[in-house]
Amino acid sequence: MAGNTFGTVFKITTFGETHGKSVGCIIDGCPSGLALSESDIQKDLDRRRPGQSTITTQRQEDDHVEIHSGVFEGRTTGTPIMLLVRNTDAKSKDYEHLKDVFRPSHADYTYLKKYGIRDYRGGGRASARETLSRVAAGAIARKYLEEKAKIEIVAFVEQIKNIGSNVNIETVTQKEVDSTVVRCPDLVAAQKMMHIIKTVRDEGDSVGGVIRCVIRNTPIGLGEPVFNKLSAQLGYAMLSIPAVKGFEIGLGFAGAEKKGSELNDPFIITNGVIKTATNNSGGVQGGISNGETIHFRVAFKPTSTIQKQQETVTTSGQQVQLSASGRHDPCVLPRAVPIVEAMVAITLMDYYLLQKIYG
Amino acid sequence: MAGNTFGTVFKITTFGETHGKSVGCIIDGCPSGLALSESDIQKDLDRRRPGQSTITTQRQEDDHVEIHSGVFEGRTTGTPIMLLVRNTDAKSKDYEHLKDVFRPSHADYTYLKKYGIRDYRGGGRASARETLSRVAAGAIARKYLEEKAKIEIVAFVEQIKNIGSNVNIETVTQKEVDSTVVRCPDLVAAQKMMHIIKTVRDEGDSVGGVIRCVIRNTPIGLGEPVFNKLSAQLGYAMLSIPAVKGFEIGLGFAGAEKKGSELNDPFIITNGVIKTATNNSGGVQGGISNGETIHFRVAFKPTSTIQKQQETVTTSGQQVQLSASGRHDPCVLPRAVPIVEAMVAITLMDYYLLQKIYG
Amino acid sequence: MAGNTFGTVFKITTFGETHGKSVGCIIDGCPSGLALSESDIQKDLDRRRPGQSTITTQRQEDDHVEIHSGVFEGRTTGTPIMLLVRNTDAKSKDYEHLKDVFRPSHADYTYLKKYGIRDYRGGGRASARETLSRVAAGAIARKYLEEKAKIEIVAFVEQIKNIGSNVNIETVTQKEVDSTVVRCPDLVAAQKMMHIIKTVRDEGDSVGGVIRCVIRNTPIGLGEPVFNKLSAQLGYAMLSIPAVKGFEIGLGFAGAEKKGSELNDPFIITNGVIKTATNNSGGVQGGISNGETIHFRVAFKPTSTIQKQQETVTTSGQQVQLSASGRHDPCVLPRAVPIVEAMVAITLMDYYLLQKIYG
Amino acid sequence: MAGNTFGTVFKITTFGETHGKSVGCIIDGCPSGLALSESDIQKDLDRRRPGQSTITTQRQEDDHVEIHSGVFEGRTTGTPIMLLVRNTDAKSKDYEHLKDVFRPSHADYTYLKKYGIRDYRGGGRASARETLSRVAAGAIARKYLEEKAKIEIVAFVEQIKNIGSNVNIETVTQKEVDSTVVRCPDLVAAQKMMHIIKTVRDEGDSVGGVIRCVIRNTPIGLGEPVFNKLSAQLGYAMLSIPAVKGFEIGLGFAGAEKKGSELNDPFIITNGVIKTATNNSGGVQGGISNGETIHFRVAFKPTSTIQKQQETVTTSGQQVQLSASGRHDPCVLPRAVPIVEAMVAITLMDYYLLQKIYG
Repeated sequence: MAGNTFGTVFKITTFGETHGKSVGCIIDGCPSGLALSESDIQKDLDRRRPGQSTITTQRQEDDHVEIHSGVFEGRTTGTPIMLLVRNTDAKSKDYEHLKDVFRPSHADYTYLKKYGIRDYRGGGRASARETLSRVAAGAIARKYLEEKAKIEIVAFVEQIKNIGSNVNIETVTQKEVDSTVVRCPDLVAAQKMMHIIKTVRDEGDSVGGVIRCVIRNTPIGLGEPVFNKLSAQLGYAMLSIPAVKGFEIGLGFAGAEKKGSELNDPFIITNGVIKTATNNSGGVQGGISNGETIHFRVAFKPTSTIQKQQETVTTSGQQVQLSASGRHDPCVLPRAVPIVEAMVAITLMDYYLLQKIYG
Repeated sequence: MAGNTFGTVFKITTFGETHGKSVGCIIDGCPSGLALSESDIQKDLDRRRPGQSTITTQRQEDDHVEIHSGVFEGRTTGTPIMLLVRNTDAKSKDYEHLKDVFRPSHADYTYLKKYGIRDYRGGGRASARETLSRVAAGAIARKYLEEKAKIEIVAFVEQIKNIGSNVNIETVTQKEVDSTVVRCPDLVAAQKMMHIIKTVRDEGDSVGGVIRCVIRNTPIGLGEPVFNKLSAQLGYAMLSIPAVKGFEIGLGFAGAEKKGSELNDPFIITNGVIKTATNNSGGVQGGISNGETIHFRVAFKPTSTIQKQQETVTTSGQQVQLSASGRHDPCVLPRAVPIVEAMVAITLMDYYLLQKIYG
Repeated sequence: MAGNTFGTVFKITTFGETHGKSVGCIIDGCPSGLALSESDIQKDLDRRRPGQSTITTQRQEDDHVEIHSGVFEGRTTGTPIMLLVRNTDAKSKDYEHLKDVFRPSHADYTYLKKYGIRDYRGGGRASARETLSRVAAGAIARKYLEEKAKIEIVAFVEQIKNIGSNVNIETVTQKEVDSTVVRCPDLVAAQKMMHIIKTVRDEGDSVGGVIRCVIRNTPIGLGEPVFNKLSAQLGYAMLSIPAVKGFEIGLGFAGAEKKGSELNDPFIITNGVIKTATNNSGGVQGGISNGETIHFRVAFKPTSTIQKQQETVTTSGQQVQLSASGRHDPCVLPRAVPIVEAMVAITLMDYYLLQKIYG
Repeated sequence: MAGNTFGTVFKITTFGETHGKSVGCIIDGCPSGLALSESDIQKDLDRRRPGQSTITTQRQEDDHVEIHSGVFEGRTTGTPIMLLVRNTDAKSKDYEHLKDVFRPSHADYTYLKKYGIRDYRGGGRASARETLSRVAAGAIARKYLEEKAKIEIVAFVEQIKNIGSNVNIETVTQKEVDSTVVRCPDLVAAQKMMHIIKTVRDEGDSVGGVIRCVIRNTPIGLGEPVFNKLSAQLGYAMLSIPAVKGFEIGLGFAGAEKKGSELNDPFIITNGVIKTATNNSGGVQGGISNGETIHFRVAFKPTSTIQKQQETVTTSGQQVQLSASGRHDPCVLPRAVPIVEAMVAITLMDYYLLQKIYG
C-alpha cells in the first residue's frame, strides 16, 4: 500500500519514472541544523551515475541534484527536504519495440497485471533509475551519522559470478573500494571480475554477484524488537533494491551448518570493555546492535536485460523471440555499491533517531 | 520505535514475556464475517507447542488460546481480535542463575544496554515464546486466505546442519511435513536429521538449518513497490523471527553465480495462460507476485542456549564460565515451521486486502 | 483502516466489547524504567468507573486492571504493556430487545451497514466502555509526563446544557474538580448542573454539555506541522471520544468574530522570559506549543440512549416505537472528564517523546 | 514526527517554503487508470490563487502546476504522482525587516524555539502557501470521488466576523459559491461581508469567520472506529489548516445545549429506504457515515498579519513595536474554501479506498 515510503522518523518518499520529467524524493524528519549543500549529495550520486566507466550503461545523465526545500542558509530547517533530478538523456524511442512485449524476469508483466497500465519506456517506475532518489536521501543520512556518531558504512563487491575476493572488513575504506571501477578492493579479484563482466557483455549476456557491507562504530542499542529488529529492517532495505534476491547477516546460511558451540560469540572483557571474541552474529543480537562491526551480504541476480535472444510472449499472447536493445549494465553491482550504502544509512538514521527517545 | 506491530491493513501487535502472566496479540483489520473459533487457532498452536516430541524442549504448556474480542456468534465482527494464552509452566527459578550473566549470542546483553533493565527469566520478551502470538494471528490469516483464495502455504525443514533433502515444492503437503517430528517430508533425510539432533542434544550442544517455504495459488499482483515489494516484506517477516540469519527467494545466492541467459524465466503460453518456463525468480518479479509458486529459504542459526560450558561475562564485568540449564530445544527448526507459515500468512493477508483497493 | 491504534511512538491499540470477555489495550513504545503498578492505573479507572455516584449508570463494575506484560520488578521494561479489565456485570439479557432495532443516533445502523454484523449487546465495540482502555493507557502517560516534565492536565465540566460556570484555568486542580460528583469546580454552577441532570434523568431524557481542559507547564516546541499540528492532533483525539461533536482551542469559534488586532497575542518580556500578554491562541501557535497554558473546549452531545419513546426502524425495515431500558448515564460528562485527560496525556506523550529526537 | 504526510492508503506528503524554489507534493496510493491532466488540477489551484480579487493578497503567482510522475499517456499508473509549482513572485526582500522579530500569533516564535532555525521569509514553511499542495492533491481525490461515486463536496463562507448567512446545504453548488468573490452564496450576506473585509483592510486590520462544508452522496460505512472515526479525521484535517481554531460536526456546540430527545435523529423509512428524519448528527454516527449529508463548520481566526502597530519582542529579547508590511489577505476565508474542500476530498478518498477492503 502506498509502498513508496521508507522509514518512520527519518522518512523518505520517492517518485519518478526513468523516462518521465524527473526523479527524486521528499525526506521528512531530518533534524534541523545539519549543514547541507547540493554538493554533499552530488558526490554520492556521481558514484551511482550511469556512464561512469566502460562496464556500466552508456546512458549519459548528469544526475544534477536540486534541493527544492528544507534547507535555509546552508542548514536543514527541520521541514521536508525535496530533492529533484531531471531526466535529460531519456531516449524513449529506444523502447518502442518493447511496448507490447514482456521482457523475461523484468517487472513488465507484473506491473501490467497489477495496475492495468504500464509506462513501458525503460521499465518506467521499475527501472533501477529510481534508486537515484535513495542515494540522494542516503547522502544526507550518511552525513548526519558521520558527523554525530562517526558511523562508517562501507560496501564493496565481494563476488561476481563465481569469483570471490578476500577483504578485511575491519579496515576496508571507501577509497579502496572506489580504486577499481568494479568496486572490489581485492585488486587481484577485481581484475578477474572486470574480465568476466566484459566477457559476458560481449556475449550479449549479463552476470550477478554479491555485495558485502560493513558498518563500523555503530552505537549499541539500535533495533526495535520484536518485529522491527535491526537485522530484519536491513534485510527489508536490501531486498527492496532491484535485482536483490538474498540477504544474510553474520555467518548467515553458512552458520546454519554449525553447532551452537561453534557459532556462539563468547563475551570477553577487553580493556575493561565488553566485546565478543568472535563476530558470527554480524553485530546484531536479539535484533539489536551489540557494538561490534555489523556485516552482511546481499545477493544480486544478473541484469535481466540481455541482448541474447530469449523466448517470451507479447501482451496479446503471442509467443515471440526477443533481443533487447536499449542501454543497460552487463552487471549492476559496481553501481549498486552506493545504493546499498544509502539504504543502510537511511535505515540506521531511523534507529539512531529513535534511540534518542528510548536510549 | 514501537516495534511490536506488523502489517498495515491486517495489523498484528503482540505482547508478553515468556515468564509473565500471558502472551498474545491484537489483530486489527481482520475483515468481518469470517467464521472463527478458538479451535481454528488452537490447531496451529499445537503444531508449535513445546513438549510435543522428544526433540523439543520439555517445558509443558497447554498453550490454550482465548479469544477475548472481535468475534460474535462465531464470526469476526471487524473489530480488534484479542488473543490471549496464559503462561502456566513458567519456572522462573530455573533462571535465577542467569540474572547476572550474559548468555552468548542471546539478547541479554543488548536488551540490558538498550533498555537499562531486562526481564532475565527465560529471555523475557526476547524468548521465542513470543512467536506463539504470531502463530495464533497467522491461523486467522491462513483461514481467510484459504477460504477466499485457496492460497496454500507449506513450509518444511529442508536442511539440518549439513544434511539436505529432496522435496517437490509443487506437491508437498502439510500432512507430509507433519508426518515426521522433524518436519522434513523427505523421510530418508528426516531420519538423518533426527539422528543429528539427538546427537548434539546429548552433547549438550545445538544445531541450525534451513526451512523452505512454498506458497501456491498466489494471485498475480501482490506487492507494493518500490519499497514494499512482496519479496522485501517476506524477507523482513522471516528475519524478524528469532534465530533467523538469512533469507533468499527463488535461486537467491545461487542465482548470483548465474548469467542472465541462464537465470531469466522465459514467458510461455500454456493452455492459453501466460506462465514462466522456469521459476528461478521464485514467483516474484519487480517485487510483485507473478502467479507462479513462491518459494524461498530461511537460514536459522543453532539455538544459542547450550549446556556445554561457554566463556562469558557477568553484568558486573567478571569473566566467567557458563553452563546453561533451563529447558530449551536443541534445534528450533521443527517448531519454527508453523512460525514461518504464520508470518507468511500475515504478510500475504496484508497484500491480499490491499489488492482489493488497487486491483 | 485498522482504526484502533492511536499515536506513533507512544502507541496504544485497544480491544474489547462491552459485553465480551474483557476490554483493554497494548501500549507499545513506553520508555523503560518508569515505576509502575496496577494501583497507578486503578486510581484513574476509578474516576471513570460506572456506578460511582447517583448521576451515573448503575452498572456495577470493579474495573480491576491487570498488567499482563511490559513491567518487571515494578518498572517498565520498554516492551509492550498489555492492560486487561474483565467485564463482570455484563447483563446481555437487557439488550435482547435491541437485537433487531436501530437506536436513534447510536452506531447500531452504521456498524451493521459497514460490517454486515454487529454485537448488539450494549453497543458492542461502540459502547463508551471502550474508553476504559484509554483511561488505563492515559494513566501511564500522565505519570510519565508528571514525573519527567511536571506537566499538569486538568479537565472539568464547564457547561451542562445551557448552564455555564466560572473557573480559573491557571489554578484549577483535579482535587477541586473531583470535589463534586458532576466534576465542575464552580460549586454554585455544580449545584445547578446536578439539578438539571437529575431532572432530565427523571424525565427519561439525557443532556449534553462542554468539557474544558487545560494543560499547564507544557514545554515549548510540541507539535509536528504541517499536518500533525498539536492543535490538530488534540482535536482528533477529542473527536475520537464517543459523543463528542465539537472542539475548539483558545478562543475558537468566538475568535472567528474578532479582528486580528483584538485576537493576536502580543509578545512581552516577563522576568526576562518571552511570554504572551494574552492567550487567545490557547497555547498553540503554528501548530506548536508556545509554553503558555494550553486550553480547549470539547462539546458532548446528550447521551443517545433515553427512556423516552422514540421513532425508529427495525433491521427488517419496520417503523417502530422504542423505549430503551438497559443502564446508562443521563449525562456522560462527569465520567468523561478522566477520558479527556487520558487522551490528552497520550497525545502529549507522543509529542514529548518525539521532541527528544528533534529538540 | 515527520508530520508532513496525510492519509494512509491515499497518502500525500507535501514540501516547500513560500520563498523557496517550489512547493508541491507526492501522492502515493492513487489508483491507476484515472484520466488526469494538469488542467484538472489547475482549475482548483486557480480558485486558491493569490491576487484573484480585490480582497485577496496582491502577490501575483501563476501557480502553474507540473505533473512530474505517475501519469502516462493521460492516465494514472498507480505509481507516485509528484506535483510541483514554482514560486515566481517571492519578494524575500519584503521580509528582511522580520528577520529578527516575532510576529504576534504567527509561528515565528514556536518554529525558532522548536527547530533552532527558521526561514523568516514570508513565514517559510508555516506560510499558508503550503496549502497549495493540498489543493493540488485534493483535485485528484475529488475527481476520483466524483467519477466513481458521484460524491459532491461544497464548502462556502458562512460567516465573516459576526455576519452570518442563510444557505440551503442540500442544494448549494460550487457555482453559486464562486459567484461572489467572498464565496458566500447568500448574496445579501455576501455584500455585507465584502464591506466588512474592505473596512478592516483599510484599517490595516484583519477579520476571521466560519466556513461550512457539506458532502452529499457519501456512501454509508466510511469511517474506521474507534480512533479513526470519520468525524475525528475530518476534524484533524480541518485543524491542520493554518488559522483554524475550531471544528464542529452536525449541531456541534449548539447540540451540547439540547436534550437527547431533541437532538437524536429518528430513523424513518422513506421510499423503502432507511433515512433519518432530522440530521443533527451531521451525517456521521458512531464515527461512520450514515448516508445522510455530512455537514460541519470550521472556525478561522483573523489573519495574524496586520499593518496596525502591535507589541512584540525581537529574537534578542527587545520589546518593540511592529507594523507588518508584506502582502497578505485581510481575510483568509474566501481563498480557504478550496483548501477545505481539498482536505475533505483527501480524507474521504482514504476511507473510500479502505471501504473496498472491508466493505
